[in-house]
Amino acid sequence: MAYTVPPLDHLIEQIQKLPGIGHKSAQRLAFYLLSLPAPKAEELVNAIVDARARIHECAVCCNLTDGERCPICDAADRDRSTICVVEDPRDVGAFERTREYNGLYHVLHGAISPMAGVGPDQLRLKQLLVRLADPAVREVILATNPTVEGEATAMYLSRLLKPFELKVTRLAYGIPVGGELEYADEITLQRSLEGRREL
Amino acid sequence: MAYTVPPLDHLIEQIQKLPGIGHKSAQRLAFYLLSLPAPKAEELVNAIVDARARIHECAVCCNLTDGERCPICDAADRDRSTICVVEDPRDVGAFERTREYNGLYHVLHGAISPMAGVGPDQLRLKQLLVRLADPAVREVILATNPTVEGEATAMYLSRLLKPFELKVTRLAYGIPVGGELEYADEITLQRSLEGRREL
Repeated sequence: MAYTVPPLDHLIEQIQKLPGIGHKSAQRLAFYLLSLPAPKAEELVNAIVDARARIHECAVCCNLTDGERCPICDAADRDRSTICVVEDPRDVGAFERTREYNGLYHVLHGAISPMAGVGPDQLRLKQLLVRLADPAVREVILATNPTVEGEATAMYLSRLLKPFELKVTRLAYGIPVGGELEYADEITLQRSLEGRREL
Repeated sequence: MAYTVPPLDHLIEQIQKLPGIGHKSAQRLAFYLLSLPAPKAEELVNAIVDARARIHECAVCCNLTDGERCPICDAADRDRSTICVVEDPRDVGAFERTREYNGLYHVLHGAISPMAGVGPDQLRLKQLLVRLADPAVREVILATNPTVEGEATAMYLSRLLKPFELKVTRLAYGIPVGGELEYADEITLQRSLEGRREL
């Protein structure tokens, strides 16, 4: 239409670039941001600016942190013999929530994807290899996603890590707990048969 | 868990305050904001700051605009005899998209809601009354939402506007086009019967 408010349209356009936000949501968020009292709006804007200024990758594991090293790499009570390699910082949170894993992590910040133009050079592989020089490390768990990209990355890593004489493991495939067999896809069922264990 | 990154947690918390954004979405958005290249992030932050600084209410109709008066109030080709009263700036967009309405608008910025502590004083009613002093105005369309609050506001307004000797109308109630009768609620069906028209 002929009647537009350029700063508002620009704001909606910017918000719409965020992942998972469509035009309607962007509109709603834009109007909400305009309606906020000044201190609330400043708090949000400052949170973005501040987080971006203070958060960077841990010098050791490449997870996101505001210190030089992340709290997990710094913790005295973590098992330093095991490194769990994940694609994304959020995956670290997922493992931490299990309260089962007590080793260290390494965040690749992506997975190999020729389609998206992501090759091994874009991942934090050098930083991982540096860590493997430490004789304390005994096992590397490849915990990339069970997707084409995650599998390709795990395969690439397993070959890359061969010379290190480490135990290299991959997460178990199988039926998700609480799921129904009826809805499991064939490949998952097949993998859960292959990986069956004696009780 | 014990391992937290305060600026990141603060950012997630701030994003979670936005309407329709849960914890998972807030997390995803926060990580996305951190991953953006600096110019992209600045563009978003600036869009928020800039829109908030430049957008305010039109001096006439209280719609949002970056000028003193909004483009609709300023347009030479709009019918100045009709004012369509809506709750929200987004409602103006909805009517404009019909390309049917060529009159003016008045944005109340809310509806009367004793539950939410919104009384007539919080709405842009004075600004509306000022406009009605113009003898060019012949009709006021009450286009508040068909909700309890919108109805209460329309009732209140219709009484408030009595002394002005204007035509005061309310949007038609009825079955939504493209809907199925089977799924229409009883009150809507009843209203669509009451408002039936000869063909």
